[in-house]
Order: sequence, then C-alpha cells, then structure tokens
Amino acid sequence: MDHYFIIYSIYLELFIVYSVLYPAKAKSRRQRWEVKPSDMANNTLNPIRAIVDGMKLTPNPDKPMIALSIGDPTVFGNLPTDETVRQALKDAIDSEKYNGYAPSVGYLKSRQAVANFYSCPEAPLEAEDVILTSGCSQAIDLAISVLCNPGDNILVPCPGFSLYKTLAVSLGIEVKLYNLLPEKSWEADLQHMESLIDERTSCLIVTNPSNPCGSVFSKEHLQKILNVASRHCVPILADEIYTDLVRCTSPSMASLSSSVPILSCGGLAKRWLVPGWRMGWILIHDRNNIFGSEIRQGLVKLSQRILGACSVVQGALEGILNAPQSFYNNTISFLKSNSQICFNELSTVPGLTPIMPSGAMYLMVGIDMGHFPDFKNDVDFTEALVTEQSVFCLPASAFEFPNYFRIVVTVPEHLMVEACGRIREFCQRHYRPRSSDSSDSNDLDQ
Amino acid sequence: MDHYFIIYSIYLELFIVYSVLYPAKAKSRRQRWEVKPSDMANNTLNPIRAIVDGMKLTPNPDKPMIALSIGDPTVFGNLPTDETVRQALKDAIDSEKYNGYAPSVGYLKSRQAVANFYSCPEAPLEAEDVILTSGCSQAIDLAISVLCNPGDNILVPCPGFSLYKTLAVSLGIEVKLYNLLPEKSWEADLQHMESLIDERTSCLIVTNPSNPCGSVFSKEHLQKILNVASRHCVPILADEIYTDLVRCTSPSMASLSSSVPILSCGGLAKRWLVPGWRMGWILIHDRNNIFGSEIRQGLVKLSQRILGACSVVQGALEGILNAPQSFYNNTISFLKSNSQICFNELSTVPGLTPIMPSGAMYLMVGIDMGHFPDFKNDVDFTEALVTEQSVFCLPASAFEFPNYFRIVVTVPEHLMVEACGRIREFCQRHYRPRSSDSSDSNDLDQ
Ligand SMILES: Cc1ncc(COP(=O)(O)O)c(C=O)c1O
Ligand SMILES: Cc1ncc(COP(=O)(O)O)c(C=O)c1O
Repeated sequence: MDHYFIIYSIYLELFIVYSVLYPAKAKSRRQRWEVKPSDMANNTLNPIRAIVDGMKLTPNPDKPMIALSIGDPTVFGNLPTDETVRQALKDAIDSEKYNGYAPSVGYLKSRQAVANFYSCPEAPLEAEDVILTSGCSQAIDLAISVLCNPGDNILVPCPGFSLYKTLAVSLGIEVKLYNLLPEKSWEADLQHMESLIDERTSCLIVTNPSNPCGSVFSKEHLQKILNVASRHCVPILADEIYTDLVRCTSPSMASLSSSVPILSCGGLAKRWLVPGWRMGWILIHDRNNIFGSEIRQGLVKLSQRILGACSVVQGALEGILNAPQSFYNNTISFLKSNSQICFNELSTVPGLTPIMPSGAMYLMVGIDMGHFPDFKNDVDFTEALVTEQSVFCLPASAFEFPNYFRIVVTVPEHLMVEACGRIREFCQRHYRPRSSDSSDSNDLDQ
Repeated sequence: MDHYFIIYSIYLELFIVYSVLYPAKAKSRRQRWEVKPSDMANNTLNPIRAIVDGMKLTPNPDKPMIALSIGDPTVFGNLPTDETVRQALKDAIDSEKYNGYAPSVGYLKSRQAVANFYSCPEAPLEAEDVILTSGCSQAIDLAISVLCNPGDNILVPCPGFSLYKTLAVSLGIEVKLYNLLPEKSWEADLQHMESLIDERTSCLIVTNPSNPCGSVFSKEHLQKILNVASRHCVPILADEIYTDLVRCTSPSMASLSSSVPILSCGGLAKRWLVPGWRMGWILIHDRNNIFGSEIRQGLVKLSQRILGACSVVQGALEGILNAPQSFYNNTISFLKSNSQICFNELSTVPGLTPIMPSGAMYLMVGIDMGHFPDFKNDVDFTEALVTEQSVFCLPASAFEFPNYFRIVVTVPEHLMVEACGRIREFCQRHYRPRSSDSSDSNDLDQ
C-alpha cells in the first residue's frame, strides 16, 4: 500500500508540476487544418493586375502582337545597358570582395558613390545620407514604412504609379489621390492636394518625372508643391527614379527647399536600363534637421529586416554611375524621337488626344469616349485594340484615371510607327461623330 | 448695384462650390513639424545589435583581434565560392538576357532549377512550388507575413536565429520561445513546444540545422516535431538554409510528412558561400492541399510588394546549383575539422562546456558562471574576453539563451587554434573553484 501511495504521490506531484509549467490549453487549440492567408497578403492589391487579369487579351492571329504596356525598357532588346555597366559588374565579381554580407544600408564606398553622383551645392549629400535598397520599390517601401502608421494617410498623384497604393494599403495606411491636370501638362491640382491634408497625413508623394504621364514639373510648380508641404508640415517622398531621363531641365525637389524634409527615392532601373538588378536608394535630405536621427535610425532598423541590394551590384556601383555621358544621351534622344513620332501620329487620329511628354518613357492618350460608343470605357477600348489590332496599351483605369491609355515609348521605332498606324485604323473604324443625345458621354477632363 | 450683385453671387457660388469640393480642415492640420518614426520602425528590434551595441569592445592592443562572432563565411577569405559559381554569374551578365524585370516570384527557368535540385521522391517539387526571394531573410519575411496576422503567435526555437523575432514583432505578431535542450544535443523540448500552442498559433518555426547551435535533428526527432504540428494543425516554417551543410544524414522536414503543410526557406548564402548575393527561396510543400491556392496566391501577392532577387543571379541559378560536389565536400570537411579542433580545445578548459555540433557553421559553449565570479553574465564574460584577449564571441543572450556563447567555426584553422588558446588563458585566469556559498550561481541547464 505504502509503495503504491508513494508512486501515486510522485505521479500526482509530477502532474501538478506539469500542470503549473504547462497549463492545459487543449480546448483552445485547433482541431482541424485551417490555414488562411493573412490580412496583409489579402490586402496586397496590384491595381494593374486587377485590371489586366480581368481583360480578355486575344490578339488578332493575323498581326504580330506589339505590347506598348510594359514599363521595362529592356524587353525589346533595342535599349541595352552600356558595356561599362556590364563590365563594372563583372569586375566586382572577379574582385571576390563582394560576396559577403554588406551592411544593411549598403557598403559605405557605394553609398559614397551615390552621394557624390547626386550631391549638388543646393542639396549636398554625404554617404550617411544614402541608404541602398533592393530596387526603388524597396526604397519606397522603407520610406512609407518609416513615416506612416496604420490609420495615417498619404497623398498620392492620380494618375500615378500603382505601387504606392499597393504598399500603403497592405500596411493599413490610407491613400488619398490628388489630381494631376492633363490640360496643364499634368501639373498637380494644388488646391485639391492641399484640401486633402489633415492631421493624419504623414507623407506627400511626388513622382517627377511621372509614370504614367511622362510629364516633368517646372521649377516653379515644384516650388509650389514644396510650399504646400511646408505650410502643413508634411514631409515629401520624392520618387525621382526618372530623374535625368528628361528632355528639359528638371531640378530635384531637394535642391529647391532646405526646409522641407525629403526622402528622394531612385535607382539604376531606368536610366541605367537594368531594372532586374534591383538596385535602388533613398537620399535623405534634411538640412533643417526635422527627420533628425530618429527617422534615420528608423530607416536603418527597417533595412535590417531583410537587407537590401545584391552585394556585387553594390560593389560595381561606382563604375556603373561612371557610364559615359553618350550612353545617357543616346537613351534620351531615342525616347524623345519615339515620343515625337507617337505624338505626331496620334494627334491626327480622330477621338484621341495624346499629351506630349517631356520625360520618363511614357505617353498618355486621352480617349473621347463619346466618339466611341462601341466601348464602355478605356478597359473595353484597349481590350478591343488587342483583339482587332494586336496592340496592347495599358488602360489608365489601372492608374485610377479612366478614359486614357498609357503608351510605353521604348519599343523600336518601326514598331512604334506600325503600332500607331494600327491604332489609327482601329479608331477610324470605331469613331462616330458625337450624336446630340450622347448626354451620358464621358468628358475628357473629368 | 446689379452688377456688383452678380459678381457677389458668382463669388458666393464659387465659394460654396469650393467649400463642397474641398471642405475646410485647416484646424486639423499640423501647425509645426513633427515627424516621428512609425511604430513598425520603432518595433523593428535586432536583439544582436541591442546586446552588442551595449558592449564595450576594446581589444587588447597587444593582440590582433579575432572575431568569432560573424555569421558570414566569407570574411576571412579562406572560404571563397567556387569558380563555376562566379562564372555562371558572369555568363548571365554576358548573355544580356537578364537585365529586365523578372516575374515577382522569379524566372520560371530558375524556379525549375531549384525545384529539380531539391525535389525527391518523398517530397516532389515543381517550378510552381518555388518562389525566389531576396535572400532567405525575405523568404522568412514572406512566409511569416502570409501565415500570420497581428495578434497571432509563432513558435520559435530558443536559442534561435534572431530574425524571426525581429520580423514578427515588427508585424505585431507575438513570439513564443520553445526551449532547445543542450543536454540532448539541442533537441527541442517537445512538451514545452506543445504547451505553448494555442488557437492563435499560426506557425511553428524549425531551424534545422541550427544557428546558433550547429545541431542537426535526427529523423526521429523531426518526426516528433511533425506530430506536434499535425496534432494541433499548425503549419511549419522550416528554415533549412543550412541543409546539406552537415556531417550526418539530415532529411528535409517535407520528406517526412505528406500531411503537414511546410514552407521550407533556403538560399545560396551558406552552402554556396555568397550571402551578399541575396538569393533565397521558399519551397512550398503541400501535398494534402491545406495551404491550397490561397496561400500560394498570398505569397505571389506579397512578392509583388518589392520584387525579389537580382535578375542576373536568377539567370545564373541553374549554373550555380551545378557547382561540383568537391566544392561542397571541401566546405563540409573544413567545417568538420575546425569544429573538432575547437571542441577538443575547449573541452579541457575549466568552466566551459562546448557542445559538439554536427552541422551549419556554429558551436555553442556553456559557461559555468559559478566558476567565474568576476563576471555577472555571458555578456560581461565575452566583453572581458575582447578586452583581455582580443577574441570576440557572441554572448548567447543575443539569442535569449544566457550563460553560453557562440563560436563561428569558419575562421582559418590557425586562427581557430590561436583563439582557443586565448580563451583557455582567459578562463584559467578567471576560474575559481565553486565556493559553497555561491548559491546564486546560475545553472548551466537553466
Ligand atoms: C515611378 C516609379 N517608381 C518606382 C519604380 C520601381 O523601380 P524599381 O524597379 O527600381 O523597383 C517604378 C518602376 O516602374 C516607377 O515607374
Ligand atoms: C538560420 C538562418 N536563417 C536565415 C538566415 C538568413 O539568410 P540570408 O542571408 O540568405 O538572408 C541566416 C543567416 O545567417 C540564418 O542563420
């Protein structure tokens, strides 16, 4: 008996110890498999995919497809990067110095190279003002993530690059769209912009030069935007990935203000024609010390989550930035000539209103829907353009700006000419003089 | 009068229209600059930095520094990557085929190469089961992000790789640490693990082989972990970045279960000795269709936030994975020999208990603090080791496992020998036989 009692006591004690250490929670555990994607995954929405995936894109089998939709300058092979750029990367590999982990914000030497490249007397930069990232996309992600809390809102241009909204919404940040005005070469509607600002507005995004518009703001207009930011104490995220890919002067925002704190996001993707290499950066402009060390420290911390750009590309950065001026000039003059061809061609097409760009690689075309009763909207219009003419342009609904479509002007010249001819044929076929009863037709400038 | 009235009316009307379009919010806007980092930035905590930044690391000027702290196998130059790996990358550059944007989940061809490399009869993989990422870090980030909502919890090994907690906490996800048992070659305390599971447990992280322990779980132990996951319907994130960097057989988790859904995270960093190249992947194992298309779709969406790995590294992936077997074998036998040297040396040092690893690149050493009254804890101990002997080992407090330190065994052999000699000298100097009153001494196995 005694013997059993002792064993029983030990069991009991073990049971008590166990229960205390590991209280039973069996009830609250799952009884069956139920694995669902997180809210963040569900809320990561890509407006372009949402529109394009819903389109029936069946090209005319008699005409080879021409995609004027893809914002990747490398797809047609007519715009290779420069030999110096490739060689710099191969040299970095051969040096065997760049296989290890770089600091999360990038090698000091590479940050210095970017600082030297973009520093100017009006907006000086040191290496410590540069954070290297995995593409401009990660630069934008870090900038939004450091400035905004869930429930805050950001101001985003409309039409504009869709990633801002994708990132913000996935983080629980509200997006307020401020209008760009096609009739003013896509200048921002400053009154509208200003009216949207409230106390939860934690960042104003300015894309200059613009995707999708190809527009470039004047110094005066940038100054006015800076004044809005300054009046309401809202920091700026300047997406300047297309800087210098312009056919006019285009100062950086930071060079125009020493009081407004600015995170300028950029990268190699467009000007150096290597978007796949995933090299971007944030330039921190904060001469009035408003970001202070806290925002800098916040960016450093966020950069440690997954680290940034590929180390060998970082190692090559100095060499890459030293590509010859002729390389840049060739790209710019090609884009200029192709834009001009496209604009000239489409200007005489009935029912279309192309808007001449002065930068980036895009051109927006207004559709006077009242003249095209065959189609409900820009999505319908561009879908039929694929079906009949095998030309695909992105409907600007993907940029939340209906009744326009975007043309990427990086295609080879002969394809640009051919595509414009097919667009003309398409429009001529579907154009109807505006009937008096078309009261519900959409207005271009809505 | 009439005239004025009309002008007045127009003004009034404009005012009303303006007020309706843009309601005044002046009061609720900011009156002065106040830009603070977001909660996410503030909550992105790196435990290693938190510990190391607080240490006074002043090496002894008479002895050159030996850092046994850095988990980067490339820092000493004795473990270069293979020539085929470098050549594959240079070939990818020369091909000029990989400068553009890759799909957000990676080129199909490259995903296929990874699928082929890791597919086995027990756990077959297709290209569509592979998502390429910017390092294993982004793989872990995507896996946690897709499986967990804020307020959920994840189970994480202790001691363990600190990134899991850094990422989870920044996303508002709770971390529950399950103990690894040093006296059982760092097997998981399964009862403890199981006791932590509740209905908000959305993922069980298993790191095998382990950083920081260098341990490798047996097939039987992995099976038991899978049983826990299966009983409570918790999916597994298997961090298998050190797979095949082992000196014993080590099956992948997925090869042992067809019922538990597993996201296996890996990459080129360790086995191919190019951590800076930022190439990682998620292998989706879901033969019972529990993740289903929803989790896959969620991963695709999340991958579109900032895109993943550098396109030229992706282009080179097939060639990289085909590095000769001798390259892998050399690394493994070097790590084995260095681990053995380190273990043998430290086994005879009074007050230390090294634990022999069988994989990865690490070795953990227990400090019997009761014998070292000069020091409060492992942080104190390793700090003094730098001051006196210029040898830096990471205190395991950085892995939330006090009274141990971690040694990285990738240093050249002569430095490993030298460092062990210095550690011996240090311990001999500070070792005190345990006094009877040292009742508050810490126990090794706490
Ligand atoms: C305005 C704008 N910002 C950022 C990006 C993203 O750049 P990256 O490819 O370097 O991430 C793009 C890409 O098209 C863009 O158009
Ligand atoms: C266990 C573990 N997982 C993941 C990583 C991160 O790998 P990567 O450098 O590919 O992001 C590391 C790096 O040390 C690690 O030790």
